[in-house]
Amino acid sequence: MRICVIGAGPSGLAQLRAFQAAREKGDEIPEIVCYEKQPDWGGLWRYDWRTGVDEYANPVHGSMYRYLWTNGPKEGLEFADYTFDEHFGKAIASYPPRAVLFDYIEGRIKKAGVRDWIRFSTVVRDVSFDGASGLFTVIARNGETDTESAEDFDHVIVASGHFSFPNVPYYPGFEGFNGRILHAHDFRDAREFEGRDLLILGTSYSAEDVGSQCWKYGAKSITVAHRTAPMGYDWPQNWAEVPALEKVDGKTATFRDGTTKKVDAIILCTGYKHHFPFLGDDLRLKTANRLAASDLYKGVVYTGNPRLFYLGMQDQWFTFNMFDAQAWWVRDCILGRISLPDAADMADDWTQRQTDEDAVADDHDAIVYQGDYVKELIAETDYPSFNVDGATEAFFEWKKHKKKAIMAFRDNGYVSPMTGTMAPPHHTPWRHALDDSLDAYLQTGSEAAE
Amino acid sequence: MRICVIGAGPSGLAQLRAFQAAREKGDEIPEIVCYEKQPDWGGLWRYDWRTGVDEYANPVHGSMYRYLWTNGPKEGLEFADYTFDEHFGKAIASYPPRAVLFDYIEGRIKKAGVRDWIRFSTVVRDVSFDGASGLFTVIARNGETDTESAEDFDHVIVASGHFSFPNVPYYPGFEGFNGRILHAHDFRDAREFEGRDLLILGTSYSAEDVGSQCWKYGAKSITVAHRTAPMGYDWPQNWAEVPALEKVDGKTATFRDGTTKKVDAIILCTGYKHHFPFLGDDLRLKTANRLAASDLYKGVVYTGNPRLFYLGMQDQWFTFNMFDAQAWWVRDCILGRISLPDAADMADDWTQRQTDEDAVADDHDAIVYQGDYVKELIAETDYPSFNVDGATEAFFEWKKHKKKAIMAFRDNGYVSPMTGTMAPPHHTPWRHALDDSLDAYLQTGSEAAE
Ligand SMILES: Cc1cc2nc3c(=O)[nH]c(=O)nc-3n(C[C@H](O)[C@H](O)[C@H](O)COP(=O)(O)OP(=O)(O)OC[C@H]3O[C@@H](n4cnc5c(N)ncnc54)[C@H](O)[C@@H]3O)c2cc1C
Ligand SMILES: Cc1cc2nc3c(=O)[nH]c(=O)nc-3n(C[C@H](O)[C@H](O)[C@H](O)COP(=O)(O)OP(=O)(O)OC[C@H]3O[C@@H](n4cnc5c(N)ncnc54)[C@H](O)[C@@H]3O)c2cc1C
Ligand SMILES: NC(=O)c1ccc[n+]([C@@H]2O[C@H](COP(=O)([O-])OP(=O)(O)OC[C@H]3O[C@@H](n4cnc5c(N)ncnc54)[C@H](OP(=O)(O)O)[C@@H]3O)[C@@H](O)[C@H]2O)c1
Ligand SMILES: NC(=O)c1ccc[n+]([C@@H]2O[C@H](COP(=O)([O-])OP(=O)(O)OC[C@H]3O[C@@H](n4cnc5c(N)ncnc54)[C@H](OP(=O)(O)O)[C@@H]3O)[C@@H](O)[C@H]2O)c1
Repeated sequence: MRICVIGAGPSGLAQLRAFQAAREKGDEIPEIVCYEKQPDWGGLWRYDWRTGVDEYANPVHGSMYRYLWTNGPKEGLEFADYTFDEHFGKAIASYPPRAVLFDYIEGRIKKAGVRDWIRFSTVVRDVSFDGASGLFTVIARNGETDTESAEDFDHVIVASGHFSFPNVPYYPGFEGFNGRILHAHDFRDAREFEGRDLLILGTSYSAEDVGSQCWKYGAKSITVAHRTAPMGYDWPQNWAEVPALEKVDGKTATFRDGTTKKVDAIILCTGYKHHFPFLGDDLRLKTANRLAASDLYKGVVYTGNPRLFYLGMQDQWFTFNMFDAQAWWVRDCILGRISLPDAADMADDWTQRQTDEDAVADDHDAIVYQGDYVKELIAETDYPSFNVDGATEAFFEWKKHKKKAIMAFRDNGYVSPMTGTMAPPHHTPWRHALDDSLDAYLQTGSEAAE
Repeated sequence: MRICVIGAGPSGLAQLRAFQAAREKGDEIPEIVCYEKQPDWGGLWRYDWRTGVDEYANPVHGSMYRYLWTNGPKEGLEFADYTFDEHFGKAIASYPPRAVLFDYIEGRIKKAGVRDWIRFSTVVRDVSFDGASGLFTVIARNGETDTESAEDFDHVIVASGHFSFPNVPYYPGFEGFNGRILHAHDFRDAREFEGRDLLILGTSYSAEDVGSQCWKYGAKSITVAHRTAPMGYDWPQNWAEVPALEKVDGKTATFRDGTTKKVDAIILCTGYKHHFPFLGDDLRLKTANRLAASDLYKGVVYTGNPRLFYLGMQDQWFTFNMFDAQAWWVRDCILGRISLPDAADMADDWTQRQTDEDAVADDHDAIVYQGDYVKELIAETDYPSFNVDGATEAFFEWKKHKKKAIMAFRDNGYVSPMTGTMAPPHHTPWRHALDDSLDAYLQTGSEAAE
């Protein structure tokens, strides 16, 4: 049996670790080939200075930027089989910068010793399914050698992420705007916008976080236009929330209430698309960005062809440990330890999940809803069971801390659901911590003070 | 017989016009389907404010920017079957802005009446060839309906351009640069860089033209680093040519001679790649950007599979009328009026062309070389014969005018090789003409003075 995994981000790596964990326990596992279009692993957590297309002319995957610190607490995403304490050899604060999380992700997968399962700089260009043989043919292009391969697999697991293809709306006047218009996907270094007046569209994580970065690194003003409702945090003085954008003219933006603002750049924090350019209509997942994705039994089995799996396609409160829960489940399904119901039951499963999601009243309940999903999957495999309610608790605290002080919430700490360790405070308040490197972060308070 | 044309830029449109011209003369022509990923025709000449990926998550095709005026004289690219005089009803100046050329391109194809041959917003995702049936299967995705089609064709003509996938080199420190790094492909509005210090890499058309734009619209300084040799024009005071870039550190660039410069943005004018993400290795053209492309008999027949054609894949002095010459030739080949030699002779053809190109001494001779190629093709079809030497003459003059005054060469005019009309001077010198719209351009001198 041969298994294809598309992507070596947190989801794809969870899948490799899941199989390796079974092998470690003495089980026989199938041959695994993981295709990764970037030259290294880590998915979005690998920082890419490039925008547009990459060195091999494929769309750049990276959406992360310099100075990004986790938005949610690390206690919500901790691996159950590889804790922060184990990796860093000491307790660290709750909102690490990107480089620190990359290091953590890499630590577990290095320990698993499966780097040679991955073909780097190799983009999957096409996947097709042959009903007669029951096999998938995967066509992939190696950018370094500029050559193509076609190989057959019994199962394909799509772990290519869904925060890399930006949703970019048009507003009247964009074609004549006298400054830069960019999507958050192409945002890289906040210092580019020092001293500038910025307009941000959107009111979700990217809007909040990209705006906060720009504020921290010296933008002159931040204006955030909302289509639905303002974020409503207690923003700094030079930060304004305004109604929806109507049009731009030269450098002047006009909002729905008729007010105007002259701005130097427009940053579209307008979300992403589930997009799979390598799949035809028969295999291609089409879903909104929601907690219960369409057409996925148990959130992972593609009902249109149950030999095909998708990981991490949900909107995410939980991330790394949810991907683990899914990857262990998919592994056991492939190993025949879990069997699938018939098509009608699989369809009922995801529609019921969507009905349940639609009944969720607020963020608090949404977190509980996704926590319950994680519990459900974990209960059906040997993934180390952990205190999921502890993780949801950290999320609840986080929400409160943001409400209290949006530019200081990262100065708080929470209890690990894995080890019970209470995170120490970081040596420097987030707002004054301008160096986001691993070294700077891991310094002790007295080193940092020097 | 069914023919597939990929792309509705100047090359693809030339192909449609070539077939329609035959039909107009009473010939029977095959069914033609043209796939165009953008929502309109014109190729690069359709301005796109987007960068990165488009509304359907495909890489943005557009590489043109606001305020772009032709770099070469319009007398070098005029259609032999549809002159500027015919389109505008009067003589116009020699270096029109983009919008004016778009209007001209559109004028001819509207007159041909073949818009319904084109499927807009439809990207070709895969082309494969079946040796048994001798047919190509073309898989295309319509972005608007988000659905895919698969259709068979006897011939495929690739006219997808080769100035849309940027070549983006890495230099040490790029990952830490505190400003914007962009390729010319993503450059849109020079006013973004008003008052800024810019570093440009590269010394070809994009470097010259993007730099000139930024200078015209108020950049503080332009520094151009060369890998091989400086451009050597008589640049304005705030424009410097420096040795190759060595590294960047924060905002400071260091050059090979040890000098440094603090810059706000880095614009990579480092050229483009021939890239065909929809083709496998058996059909994919691999060539450098040169006058005699590899593997193309007569510059258009793919020697790896002579049922497949490529248009416009050469580096370009001649453009629109060269694409016409190629399109008429390909049409006649498909209609059986021209027959192909055997494989060995086809291979000799392109290798001999490359040998001849390698012997070319300078730009003057390169222009003559490409003019001769245009003459060669035209002589073999019924494309209206024209004074190719007249066009090369306009190129020679252009070269001299640039040498004389790089910020004023566009104030000159030349003689049309089609009509013999001498172009009038434009009503405003290029350097002071800030409005690049069609209306502004077509005003008379007295209207413009108002
Ligand atoms: C700006 C931003 C900030 C975020 N911050 C946080 C945070 O603070 N905390 C948190 O928990 N989550 C955060 N996330 C959520 C993020 O989605 C997850 O943390 C995680 O990266 C998802 O993992 P993944 O493996 O599913 O997808 P990705 O990380 O996107 O990895 C997918 C991988 O697939 C590869 N790939 C894609 N297409 C192909 C192809 N055709 N062929 C081969 N390989 C391919 C990619 O190169 C990539 O390596 C953030 C997301 C964004 C966009
Ligand atoms: C910045 C810049 C400035 C230039 N200025 C000049 C100038 O002043 N004078 C001049 O003569 N030339 C100029 N050129 C040269 C230019 O290449 C030609 O003028 C001309 O546009 C080439 O025509 P084309 O049809 O071959 O390619 P393009 O104009 O690139 O058109 C190709 C078409 O194919 C479509 N396409 C691509 N991939 C797919 C797919 N997979 N499926 C469906 N459709 C697809 C594209 O959307 C596009 O419409 C310039 C080029 C650049 C980059
Ligand atoms: N540091 C961090 O941890 C960090 C930083 C950034 C992002 N992220 C992650 O990245 C992921 C994506 O977040 P996101 O904020 O990019 O996307 P998102 O959560 O999907 O939000 C999209 C936003 O765009 C708005 N929008 C969509 N179309 C619009 C239009 N046409 N005009 C105006 N507004 C429009 C939506 O408004 P409506 O509400 O009106 O629909 C919404 O506010 C999340 O998982 C998040 O956790 C994390
Ligand atoms: N207004 C206009 O008409 C206009 C404007 C812009 C472009 N164009 C057209 O666009 C097309 C493309 O022109 P272009 O200038 O983008 O590309 P190009 O002609 O291919 O030139 C590429 C340049 O990049 C340099 N380069 C490549 N790799 C590099 C690296 N690693 N480091 C530093 N420099 C590097 C090359 O330097 P070396 O010489 O050292 O190799 C060369 O100077 C042309 O057809 C042109 O006519 C037209």
